[in-house]
Amino acid sequence: MYRTHTCGELRISDQGKKVTLSGWIQRSRDLGGMTFIDLRDRYGVTQLVFNMETNAGLCTEARKLGREYVLMAEGNVNERSNKNPKMPTGDIEIQVTAFNVLNAAATPPFTIEDESDGGDELRMKYRYLDLRRNPLKNNLMLRHRMAFETRNYLNSQAFIEVETPVLIKSTPEGARDFVVPSRVNPGQFYALPQSPQTFKQLLMVAGYDRYMQIVKCFRDEDLRADRQPEFTQIDCEMAFVHQDDILDMFEGLIGHLFREVKGVIFETRFPRMTFAEAMEKYGSDKPDIRFGMTFVDLANACKGKGFGVIDDAPYVGGIVAQGCSEYTRKQLDELTDFVKKPQVGARGLIYIRCNADGTYKSSMDKFYSPDDLKGIAAAAAAVAGDLILILTGEKQPTQKALGELRLEMGNRLGLRDKKEFKPLWVVDFPLLEWDQETKRFYAMHHPFTSPKPEDAQYLESDPARVRANAYDCVINGVEVGGGSIRIHDEALQKRMFKSLGFTDEEAQNQFGFLLGAFRYGAPPHGGIAFGFDRLVSLFAGEDSIRDVIAFPKNNAARDVMAECPSEISEAQLKELSIRVQKN
Amino acid sequence: MYRTHTCGELRISDQGKKVTLSGWIQRSRDLGGMTFIDLRDRYGVTQLVFNMETNAGLCTEARKLGREYVLMAEGNVNERSNKNPKMPTGDIEIQVTAFNVLNAAATPPFTIEDESDGGDELRMKYRYLDLRRNPLKNNLMLRHRMAFETRNYLNSQAFIEVETPVLIKSTPEGARDFVVPSRVNPGQFYALPQSPQTFKQLLMVAGYDRYMQIVKCFRDEDLRADRQPEFTQIDCEMAFVHQDDILDMFEGLIGHLFREVKGVIFETRFPRMTFAEAMEKYGSDKPDIRFGMTFVDLANACKGKGFGVIDDAPYVGGIVAQGCSEYTRKQLDELTDFVKKPQVGARGLIYIRCNADGTYKSSMDKFYSPDDLKGIAAAAAAVAGDLILILTGEKQPTQKALGELRLEMGNRLGLRDKKEFKPLWVVDFPLLEWDQETKRFYAMHHPFTSPKPEDAQYLESDPARVRANAYDCVINGVEVGGGSIRIHDEALQKRMFKSLGFTDEEAQNQFGFLLGAFRYGAPPHGGIAFGFDRLVSLFAGEDSIRDVIAFPKNNAARDVMAECPSEISEAQLKELSIRVQKN
Repeated sequence: MYRTHTCGELRISDQGKKVTLSGWIQRSRDLGGMTFIDLRDRYGVTQLVFNMETNAGLCTEARKLGREYVLMAEGNVNERSNKNPKMPTGDIEIQVTAFNVLNAAATPPFTIEDESDGGDELRMKYRYLDLRRNPLKNNLMLRHRMAFETRNYLNSQAFIEVETPVLIKSTPEGARDFVVPSRVNPGQFYALPQSPQTFKQLLMVAGYDRYMQIVKCFRDEDLRADRQPEFTQIDCEMAFVHQDDILDMFEGLIGHLFREVKGVIFETRFPRMTFAEAMEKYGSDKPDIRFGMTFVDLANACKGKGFGVIDDAPYVGGIVAQGCSEYTRKQLDELTDFVKKPQVGARGLIYIRCNADGTYKSSMDKFYSPDDLKGIAAAAAAVAGDLILILTGEKQPTQKALGELRLEMGNRLGLRDKKEFKPLWVVDFPLLEWDQETKRFYAMHHPFTSPKPEDAQYLESDPARVRANAYDCVINGVEVGGGSIRIHDEALQKRMFKSLGFTDEEAQNQFGFLLGAFRYGAPPHGGIAFGFDRLVSLFAGEDSIRDVIAFPKNNAARDVMAECPSEISEAQLKELSIRVQKN
Repeated sequence: MYRTHTCGELRISDQGKKVTLSGWIQRSRDLGGMTFIDLRDRYGVTQLVFNMETNAGLCTEARKLGREYVLMAEGNVNERSNKNPKMPTGDIEIQVTAFNVLNAAATPPFTIEDESDGGDELRMKYRYLDLRRNPLKNNLMLRHRMAFETRNYLNSQAFIEVETPVLIKSTPEGARDFVVPSRVNPGQFYALPQSPQTFKQLLMVAGYDRYMQIVKCFRDEDLRADRQPEFTQIDCEMAFVHQDDILDMFEGLIGHLFREVKGVIFETRFPRMTFAEAMEKYGSDKPDIRFGMTFVDLANACKGKGFGVIDDAPYVGGIVAQGCSEYTRKQLDELTDFVKKPQVGARGLIYIRCNADGTYKSSMDKFYSPDDLKGIAAAAAAVAGDLILILTGEKQPTQKALGELRLEMGNRLGLRDKKEFKPLWVVDFPLLEWDQETKRFYAMHHPFTSPKPEDAQYLESDPARVRANAYDCVINGVEVGGGSIRIHDEALQKRMFKSLGFTDEEAQNQFGFLLGAFRYGAPPHGGIAFGFDRLVSLFAGEDSIRDVIAFPKNNAARDVMAECPSEISEAQLKELSIRVQKN
């Protein structure tokens, strides 16, 4: 070992010990006759001292050392005259008697500090330097602990981790696959898994009962802000369970993680909300319930006064922003601009100020008398000092837009505290989703999700009406996990494929081995998968999953550090029986 | 839940309880007025009883159930009249009061028993049924426990698990890469990692100090018996350590796994043997030290009697098979055939019987007097009753062949007990290996392995002489892990690349980002990777790693269950800017 102790562990009780530390030079200060060096490793920072009076040679040498040099230093643990209560090692310093430069360092292209001066691109290129910074280091330590505690909890619940293959069969259903040409089987390809879905269901058929895996998954999508071509799931499946058994089990997992990793204890069970209620009250299938401001249907209270925007709208919904009656014209304009953004998509915003003096002021004063407004305020349960915000239009898009406005107001009012955590289960998702473009139904979750038994009768007559045994785990408005009870009955599965417009042959071709397996004794089963990157970023209080991934790709799916993807040789292509042909 | 208990947990103390079990029908027996069904799940087997006298309807229904049906049964726990001490649940049975067929099952294509009647191909095609068998189930449970305990141990030693990317840059050095065409970057490719080598070294540069990962790796090789295109490693790296620190740490890991998982405790430290000694005494860099029978150099004792096969040979080596002097002609012929096999490659076998009566009988009697033979026996430390087996020829291949013969004798004499475990470290591997075909040196381990400091001076003048700070962990003749101390000095790394025949440009092109990283303060570091599949198969007593992998590929790298790899659509190929072109 190049050290007797780490840079994070020495305390006043170690005073007088002769120690050896190794680490990186965080900073160096020359003060008159003394030189101070902060030596850093993963565990912390310890101050080294060199004294011109007692050892001029050593001190002179020390003054030549640069930032990020790798140093091994020997010396004695002394009590500091100038203690630093902010550092765990702040009571002591090392009076260095000898040192050894283990490696020199060029000047880093940005500062290795909690707040670095480097831009995103530069820090991505030198990711190995960026990873030295505390924020990233703490995120990766957190990620490790969360993975470790996930396994601890699930192991204690008799789950076994089974590794499923990474080189699998490509299926056209779902998102785009990454593929891998096979050299040994010319013209044929493997795909990288978008999830281990079929394999975990096969494990249930095989009797494994409680399966888990923390596993890399792959999706060749055009990247948005918070997506990566490879991402990590906590993937789980259980047999002989009903939906409630799964929700109970994984509420246990999430509770365990919060308790062990963040010291957060949930006093009550996670609320369970239907998809229909979530849309009706929050305009989102992943409601942020850290704050109320739920939707009020104002159609009855508003209609019939001759205001076309309201009278002609299939849906009139509002939210009440408490204490915002004095919002300025500028603030209201900002909100109007916000709801008109293409991503939100409303045509305009109606407001009613419930003034402190009991009067009302609204953007639709022309059509509504003070008494009308009072009636609407009463319907919205708004009181003096509140601001009512109203959107109108087609039901679904308007609810969605109102949901966005609600979140914006939550942000403005500081109601979305990153240190507060409010989980819930959203249940009873629709089984199928109509796609206007391809004019067919798609499975909202996936083709193996089971309909609710009482709704299965409508699978042919009214597919849109069928609810699924599907559920999402939502925390603070973030969908951290989702799953379903699967179909384990061959006849029902065939009906499902039919609803999705699959011919028997297509179903057989794509999922033949799973359908075959179902003929040999498939147990009732269901499961869930958590987006591990997103869960970690939620715990870390980070907005992007990139900040909790050691070596992420950029928005063009490139690793700018390793310069990858890259071209490969003609010989490699030939061996793989493929040619590049750019369009 | 479809059950109150598993099929493995009820005991006599549960007598009288009303329970619900769910599982698969292992077998069913009709005995006069009774029907017995063995119900199986992951946890065990419980006997269900139906009685024609007390409930004829139910019993008649039960008689219709076939093998592998999925059943939920309700009933009472009774004491058995006919206890089965071989089953943990053998003291009780369930008097069934009601049951529910959760799923029917077609007759499986082979029997789901410890010894199945299905051939390899058939069992691979129906892997989900094969996985129901106890031997495979136990292997996967063992694998889970070993992964779990590996993480437990390394976590307790302050290692953190960091996920490294699966989509990385392709490098021509080493084995063949699997590649993944990038849609977003036409004409460019990712590679799947053969190991996370560069990333774990970057993590050391980033200061992470103690890294571990249980990780999938990929190699596009022509498959031999015990290889898979995707395999799993326990991958580790440490900074600020010397070789001994690494050996100590991972001896700790292996000891922990044996203790926790198999109850095996090693009383002494693992022996450490140099590569040179391993070749000299065992003809192998992975000696099986469960038994002795080490090589004796018999050149001095044998030469000079006019027998050309000996006199002209650069190397004359022998082993002593104790108590084998009475081997028959047939047995000796078998051994001669064995050493002549192309895989072993000797030209012939010389033997000397040391008869019980003190006489000698040898295949080279023509050249050697009884006294000569006595002298050779003395040199070999053979005694009456022993058989001396001698091979001659060029040193390296002859030692290798003698090593194979030694293992064969170990097998014949029952000296290789699968329940006995003898680990050791083989150290001081050569740094470089000459390749006759391409006329250049290759890194025996990889290009970042550091030479022993005292040998570095010969890197240019006598590269073959340079030993590396490289080590293998060997158990029972199986290399389960290997690693090295890495080069962290840029100048030395450049000399190493030169020895490997890399131009500066080539080195820069392939490993530029790692070399770049080394300029910003790389600490001394080293690591190790264990072949997890192999380690588990060693613990399981299995000969093939396939038996410890849930869904393995066959020898043609195919998944015969999912029928993969397979062709993909023209549209997919076009999106990826590639075309298939078979040669």
